[in-house]
Amino acid sequence: MQKYFITKEDLALNRITGDDAYQIATVLRFKGGETVMVSDTFSNYLAKIKSVSKDEVTFEIIEEKAGDMELPVFVSIYQGYPKGDKMEEIIKHSTELGASKIVPTFMKRSIVKLEEKKIDSRIVRFQKIAKEAAEQSFRSKIPTIDSIPYLKTINFDDYDVKILCYEENAKNGELTNFKSIVSNLKKDQRVAVLIGPEGGIDDTELEYLKNKGFIPCALGKRILRTETAVFYVLSSISYEMELKKWVKLVL
Amino acid sequence: MQKYFITKEDLALNRITGDDAYQIATVLRFKGGETVMVSDTFSNYLAKIKSVSKDEVTFEIIEEKAGDMELPVFVSIYQGYPKGDKMEEIIKHSTELGASKIVPTFMKRSIVKLEEKKIDSRIVRFQKIAKEAAEQSFRSKIPTIDSIPYLKTINFDDYDVKILCYEENAKNGELTNFKSIVSNLKKDQRVAVLIGPEGGIDDTELEYLKNKGFIPCALGKRILRTETAVFYVLSSISYEMELKKWVKLVL
Repeated sequence: MQKYFITKEDLALNRITGDDAYQIATVLRFKGGETVMVSDTFSNYLAKIKSVSKDEVTFEIIEEKAGDMELPVFVSIYQGYPKGDKMEEIIKHSTELGASKIVPTFMKRSIVKLEEKKIDSRIVRFQKIAKEAAEQSFRSKIPTIDSIPYLKTINFDDYDVKILCYEENAKNGELTNFKSIVSNLKKDQRVAVLIGPEGGIDDTELEYLKNKGFIPCALGKRILRTETAVFYVLSSISYEMELKKWVKLVL
Repeated sequence: MQKYFITKEDLALNRITGDDAYQIATVLRFKGGETVMVSDTFSNYLAKIKSVSKDEVTFEIIEEKAGDMELPVFVSIYQGYPKGDKMEEIIKHSTELGASKIVPTFMKRSIVKLEEKKIDSRIVRFQKIAKEAAEQSFRSKIPTIDSIPYLKTINFDDYDVKILCYEENAKNGELTNFKSIVSNLKKDQRVAVLIGPEGGIDDTELEYLKNKGFIPCALGKRILRTETAVFYVLSSISYEMELKKWVKLVL
């Protein structure tokens, strides 16, 4: 089943407009009678398609669905801006894995330099990727992506917990920090996760982040690429907080 | 520091040959005196470069390093053959995250059809990706990739534990199977993980796999793409089995 994030106004008018309507009419070729999920990011509804045109698809709501598909903590990913199209891959998969906010961050060893005028269009593109990934993974919310800041302009004061993914800890055999932090997380806490770009974190950045309250953590024994670290972090938080041990097997 | 997997013979002769020697001479432009890691996949050594040419780099061994960078269980990933170049992405990241064996598997809903004659060259390419990812992540071993079988030709009898990543379990709110299995794993157990291609697992395949002892599992609350599922599985196994809670913070 497809899921669509629509505006409050469209929800009130029981309609889907814009690119989504176009997709339903021309790619999916729905004719009416099909079932989809619609959401205004607050509530999720099972809806039945009534009419289809390229500009507007109308529906009737069948029932409200429990919408709690979100991680029990708010995780903001501060990702040192990587090379090539890795940032898009990171946004796509981080969204599936439950990130609340993704902040592509310029750090000393980021190789990409974006011209000022290109930043806005890049953010629009990132937001589109996040919206599509949120729909595809049945998220209740779309992660926020609203700027591409330099590290030192970011205010980290509002976070309860600050995790710095740091490969030197893995090389030194540190294996306790990450699990100790994650296993102590409480529902609704705000978690900042910082991951360096390919070249890693500069010494002055390391000191700066430690002073801001970040705790350097190894993610297992192996050295992960920059784009792999975020998968480890979000998967582990889900494993620790969302999954339970069985009373009985559900086959 | 770079890591190189070399043959037993080259290790005995204290030399690096082939593509790796070429890379050291022309890309890294080492001149001698630099330190690298070398491994025959059984032992790991810190080595100092003595001489460099495009055909042969010689070294002297400084010391043997503890080589246990491997997950405490043997995880074989049976990945329903996906579209495009996703299989390469999966091999790269699964290697970083500790998979022992990766088996691209033709399933009913795999869209890719490889001609017989192309399979061998594809396997060679996959093995190259796994070797590079193992070097980059400081693995002690390179994961095995030695065939692209059809699902029903695979013998799963030797596995202690069989995990089927199944999105319908996530849709139905099942949240206990995966963690119950992973938290009960014992060192050196053999774990089979099966992940369907983009279109998912066919009903007849589902029944077949259940009969073979696979347990369907949700991976958190959200619906993951085929290429994201494996990251969740391997990260969670590392988190559960490799990481510990602290006695004290290591800063």
